[in-house]
Amino acid sequence: MTKLWGGIEAGGTKFVCAAGTGPNDIRAEQRFPTTTPTETIGRAIDYFRQQQAEHGKLAAVGIASFGPIDPNPASPKFGTITTTPKPGWANTDFAGAVGRALGVPVGFDTDVNAAALGEWRWGAGQGLANLIYFTIGTGIGGGGLLNGKLMHGLIHPEMGHMRLPHDLTADPYRGRCPYHGDCFEGLACGPAISERWKQAADTLPDGHPAWVLEAHYLALAMTNVICTLSPERIILGGGVMSHPTLLAMVQREVRELLAGYVQSPAILNNIDKYIVAPGLGNQSGVLGAFALAEQAFSAAAR
Amino acid sequence: MTKLWGGIEAGGTKFVCAAGTGPNDIRAEQRFPTTTPTETIGRAIDYFRQQQAEHGKLAAVGIASFGPIDPNPASPKFGTITTTPKPGWANTDFAGAVGRALGVPVGFDTDVNAAALGEWRWGAGQGLANLIYFTIGTGIGGGGLLNGKLMHGLIHPEMGHMRLPHDLTADPYRGRCPYHGDCFEGLACGPAISERWKQAADTLPDGHPAWVLEAHYLALAMTNVICTLSPERIILGGGVMSHPTLLAMVQREVRELLAGYVQSPAILNNIDKYIVAPGLGNQSGVLGAFALAEQAFSAAAR
Repeated sequence: MTKLWGGIEAGGTKFVCAAGTGPNDIRAEQRFPTTTPTETIGRAIDYFRQQQAEHGKLAAVGIASFGPIDPNPASPKFGTITTTPKPGWANTDFAGAVGRALGVPVGFDTDVNAAALGEWRWGAGQGLANLIYFTIGTGIGGGGLLNGKLMHGLIHPEMGHMRLPHDLTADPYRGRCPYHGDCFEGLACGPAISERWKQAADTLPDGHPAWVLEAHYLALAMTNVICTLSPERIILGGGVMSHPTLLAMVQREVRELLAGYVQSPAILNNIDKYIVAPGLGNQSGVLGAFALAEQAFSAAAR
Repeated sequence: MTKLWGGIEAGGTKFVCAAGTGPNDIRAEQRFPTTTPTETIGRAIDYFRQQQAEHGKLAAVGIASFGPIDPNPASPKFGTITTTPKPGWANTDFAGAVGRALGVPVGFDTDVNAAALGEWRWGAGQGLANLIYFTIGTGIGGGGLLNGKLMHGLIHPEMGHMRLPHDLTADPYRGRCPYHGDCFEGLACGPAISERWKQAADTLPDGHPAWVLEAHYLALAMTNVICTLSPERIILGGGVMSHPTLLAMVQREVRELLAGYVQSPAILNNIDKYIVAPGLGNQSGVLGAFALAEQAFSAAAR
């Protein structure tokens, strides 16, 4: 029988909640601002109760969360947002609160791991055991599946904070990461583009040197990800990627940077099918939350 | 019953062959130079035949190989060295030749994946599902296990070729990678140290600025690996790491570069147990080959 999933895309500025069964059936998506944990998680719970009253019992809920988080089901702090600087949210037992209120299994992971799982389940990464998803937006994050499972390890990846070559002569901008200055996120997130060029990123025209520089940093980062992880595909999502020519510029420069060293047809001949846009558009997050719910349901049923 | 394994550590300049059952039982290790595939693989087969005559049948052989290779058992080119510039070795069916001659299952992977597996089985990474091993020597390579399995993906990692920040004012050396110039390996392999300082790396004294710079590049690379993969431990092997103070310098600088962003006790309080020397010393490779043999035996028995 088709199961009804609940999904929360929990961002630092807004929450998106939805219920549904998959990409062709997303019901009554609701958005509200992220305020205090009690209020915001309370609104999400109210939303799901209302959905249950209208459509019947949810089988499970998935949460695609801002972080850092504890996504390890074996840990006593599983389901919590851990050390975020966002006021009030540190050590919030997010998954526990939702699970107790609704009495359903809860899947919980980073926003980017969830998006990767959504793309693996229904989007541009179907059937791939080694898949990386990046969001390039207000912040930069990366996650994915390796050897068929979501990436956790010590905690979870923080791919936005890798260090990249930064030619201060060509680009004297010092970067805006409060921890690392000119790490990947510090150089290439949307607000960094706006601050560097003193103009909102989405108003910079095609052909502006901003996009050449942005493609350069993105290509350096993707080159490092390819050398480090050897993924079968990379999906680039997030608001910055909506600039129309950016993806093709990144694809071209990754191939140049690898310089023929990684001898795979995927890179040498089909880079346009190797580094791709999300198959689920801007719904990777919510559908990723559904996919987390589905995983949690299966785990609870075992 | 204890099984007898054969192991080949196949490097670009020399082969090391051994037979044995584990770290406390390595018999009659033999070394010879890497010449043509026919001659070199032939000598390895002769060695194993002689071991079998003396000690009884080998249960399986493992090969820890220089690359790039095809380590995917489902691929028609499994077991081959693929596109190496080393004369005569491109498209060599290495595992197939050994398996046909000896009539045993053959495990085949990169030298660094094998070393990681050896350390996971008997050394400094026991019980860790997410473990990275680097060799810092004539070249630089990294591999490991993620989610409990060896890293393959599209092909296999080439971690030595990630790009790092390179301050040309502080270090005008242009790097020696024939593909990428100043990638990680181009800046930080043993021959790069010797070329930059015009002195053999192993003769540079403690306190020489060469080691500060080397630690800096190693720390940048390990920081990127931590942000990208979130490993539970990193093992640093290879000849360059034998410089006595280098490991501690890398540990210290990794913590500085992460700047408190990754909030794990492993990094904040126990970095000396997080980035470590190999537990198997310079036998990670040969014992890794035994561990590959063991995996191949188990797979064949299923």
